[in-house]
Amino acid sequence: MSLTNASPADAARAAKSASHVLATLSAEARNDALTAIHSGLTAARDEILAANARDLELARQAAADGKLSASLVSRLDLGKPGKWEDMLKGILDVRDLEDPVGRVTLRTKLDDGLELERVTCPIGVLLIIFEARPEVIANIAALAVKSGNAAILKGGKESTESFVAISTVISNALSQTQVPNDAIQLVTTRESIPQLLALDRDIDLVIPRGSNELVRYIKENTKIPVLGHADGLCSIYLTASADPKLAADVVVDAKTSYPAACNSVETLLVQESALTTVFPAVAAALAAKNVELRCDAPSKAAVMSALATSESSIPNVVVQDATDKDYDTEFLSLTLAVKTVPDVSAAIAHINAHGSHHTEAILTADKEEAERFMSAVDASGAYWNASTRFADGMRYGFGTEVGISTNKIHSRGPVGLEGLMIYKYKIRGQGHVSAIYGEGEGKRRFKHERLAL
Amino acid sequence: MSLTNASPADAARAAKSASHVLATLSAEARNDALTAIHSGLTAARDEILAANARDLELARQAAADGKLSASLVSRLDLGKPGKWEDMLKGILDVRDLEDPVGRVTLRTKLDDGLELERVTCPIGVLLIIFEARPEVIANIAALAVKSGNAAILKGGKESTESFVAISTVISNALSQTQVPNDAIQLVTTRESIPQLLALDRDIDLVIPRGSNELVRYIKENTKIPVLGHADGLCSIYLTASADPKLAADVVVDAKTSYPAACNSVETLLVQESALTTVFPAVAAALAAKNVELRCDAPSKAAVMSALATSESSIPNVVVQDATDKDYDTEFLSLTLAVKTVPDVSAAIAHINAHGSHHTEAILTADKEEAERFMSAVDASGAYWNASTRFADGMRYGFGTEVGISTNKIHSRGPVGLEGLMIYKYKIRGQGHVSAIYGEGEGKRRFKHERLAL
Repeated sequence: MSLTNASPADAARAAKSASHVLATLSAEARNDALTAIHSGLTAARDEILAANARDLELARQAAADGKLSASLVSRLDLGKPGKWEDMLKGILDVRDLEDPVGRVTLRTKLDDGLELERVTCPIGVLLIIFEARPEVIANIAALAVKSGNAAILKGGKESTESFVAISTVISNALSQTQVPNDAIQLVTTRESIPQLLALDRDIDLVIPRGSNELVRYIKENTKIPVLGHADGLCSIYLTASADPKLAADVVVDAKTSYPAACNSVETLLVQESALTTVFPAVAAALAAKNVELRCDAPSKAAVMSALATSESSIPNVVVQDATDKDYDTEFLSLTLAVKTVPDVSAAIAHINAHGSHHTEAILTADKEEAERFMSAVDASGAYWNASTRFADGMRYGFGTEVGISTNKIHSRGPVGLEGLMIYKYKIRGQGHVSAIYGEGEGKRRFKHERLAL
Repeated sequence: MSLTNASPADAARAAKSASHVLATLSAEARNDALTAIHSGLTAARDEILAANARDLELARQAAADGKLSASLVSRLDLGKPGKWEDMLKGILDVRDLEDPVGRVTLRTKLDDGLELERVTCPIGVLLIIFEARPEVIANIAALAVKSGNAAILKGGKESTESFVAISTVISNALSQTQVPNDAIQLVTTRESIPQLLALDRDIDLVIPRGSNELVRYIKENTKIPVLGHADGLCSIYLTASADPKLAADVVVDAKTSYPAACNSVETLLVQESALTTVFPAVAAALAAKNVELRCDAPSKAAVMSALATSESSIPNVVVQDATDKDYDTEFLSLTLAVKTVPDVSAAIAHINAHGSHHTEAILTADKEEAERFMSAVDASGAYWNASTRFADGMRYGFGTEVGISTNKIHSRGPVGLEGLMIYKYKIRGQGHVSAIYGEGEGKRRFKHERLAL
């Protein structure tokens, strides 16, 4: 790993060459490198958190001046309970996963002595561009090394101190391993982004981690495939058959456990017949957590009516009239748009028109309705009676994640190791030529026998 | 299937809506539609071939006037031996393949009562743009219907007559099935291409079938992912240990069996020590098939010397001096660049620098050398002692193919049904919330038990 002063083009070319070496390393050599990274970070905990605290201090000032969003500050904080531990555990989880390189996923006997094989291999060179979230450096380095991909990392200026501290530790750790120095390149200058995005010959995949604006900028400005998501506009559809406590628990978790996260809920669709039955309990639970509701007329009336007849006082209820724009907004804060719909078809239609193909949930006691919802919503995640916040590589058991994709090709949802692999076809023959095969008379037929893996 | 006069935006929106219906049809309903297409085409053979003959007549005139390449004319010809039969067989092959929709590829118990499932589903709406190759219409319609994807087809003006004839038959056939009319849209006006390429909200994947120029134009002008290849610059590395007859057979097949195909060989790398042993037999066999050789100095000297001492006369030998450009050229004709290299490392380095990541072959008796070559070349296909012409979906046993991809993500090599699928994650819970899980004290751990599929 090198903190490079090389030009982006030179860095990318060096990464490409290194990727050819990295791709040939044994699983053991790659795992040893991950152990070294983990040990190095564990030993350097205090200095890294101190560096992160300096980043946070500057960010909080910028936020106070209105120059930075509160959600970005929140993402920057490596000292948040559990975050450091999750980061370190992620590295070992990745190390202990099955080796993704060289797996044979298809074997076919084309003819006597002519065998086709499909084998997984690394994609090549990844470009990771991130803003805050300093833990991404360690995650990505681990995933890149494990998957045999070279990576170019470009961090945001808000996390510079954390970035340099973590990368110095990783660099020292890797220098004692077989992973080539150029396999993980760090780029610190902001001006380099447009140049990197133009290097479609040497860079195979861009993975942006950051604001919707960052992702959109990258998608607009490169021909390299981009894996990720701009928006995370998740919805929950609350039906009349849902258990009120279950519904309140799930919606509160989905909205409040980490409002800045892309998998937090932004729109609550309420079945009309649930307005006076299940919904009031959900609204009360949200209000108790200081969530502001942006309601359409029927749902606002239901909240108001429930409040008027409620014996317990509900603190801090803020109910606003929703505008159309609220149903297309990723608030990333304690704000939730609420819309009334007649049935599951209307909920599906709303989600397919307004959603971001990220994660959608239905709360219902009706299995058939749930299955229909999960099949019909056009999203990477479709949940029944569970919080949208489960959309996460660690929670899915992928060890860690490189990001969450709302793409329709390659990888969708939380992307772990598998999303960083591609494959090649190998054929082993004995001088076989193609011209003798065909459907016509005197032509030879292929056998196409599926062989055991 | 509708020959639409709608605007591209309306056609794409209609296709998107239809894709939601198509995705919910049973495998039986989709297979019935393929049977109907096959029957319709079988019955209409004569009129379609007559329409194709009219296209060919115009194309041959244009070629004679130098306005069209000979390779395009060759691709246009549906009456070429075996082509019609291959097209029809492809439809039934696709129909008889395992249903790709709704396959569960991962099941994980996250916790008690909380299960994660990964299920295959269609991508959505495909845009297929092709120039010649009228058989693509039937192939694509079959693959789209089988995979549950809607498709917008845009044909080239050279194949207009064939296009209209085939599409009318398919349209009539589909009208008797459950596949919605808008699921397969035909667009005939040339001006619509830039408009279609801008519709990245409704179109999920572009698949160009045609010249390198067409593919490059499309890649430069859309933000929609493009699946395919611009260049097909395949190489064969001829080593000194290769059997001369085997080598001659394979190289001749790879160069001459269909020179206009993307999987034909364009560069022959010859090991220095093979120049006077194996290479003369290969050169003689190529010369006998009227292949022009563009040689570097050592290989030219070897051919000349072999000719001088040859007892049998070799007709039509044309040996030219190669220029640097010849090693970056996809000739698509009976021309082959020849370059001398010292060893397998140099061959790999040449291919990784000049190749198009399509298909590369090594001819050798040395298994270790072959395995090294196949692992190290950065290509979708790496073959040992077999012709590059095997790079084809039918030959791989995929039923038919939507194209050959040199992409580094999603699908690589010949792309059949699997390449037209994506997946979604479903979670079924019982009111599970995320906040109780973590690594800290008092936090609940995920179980992450892999379940049987």
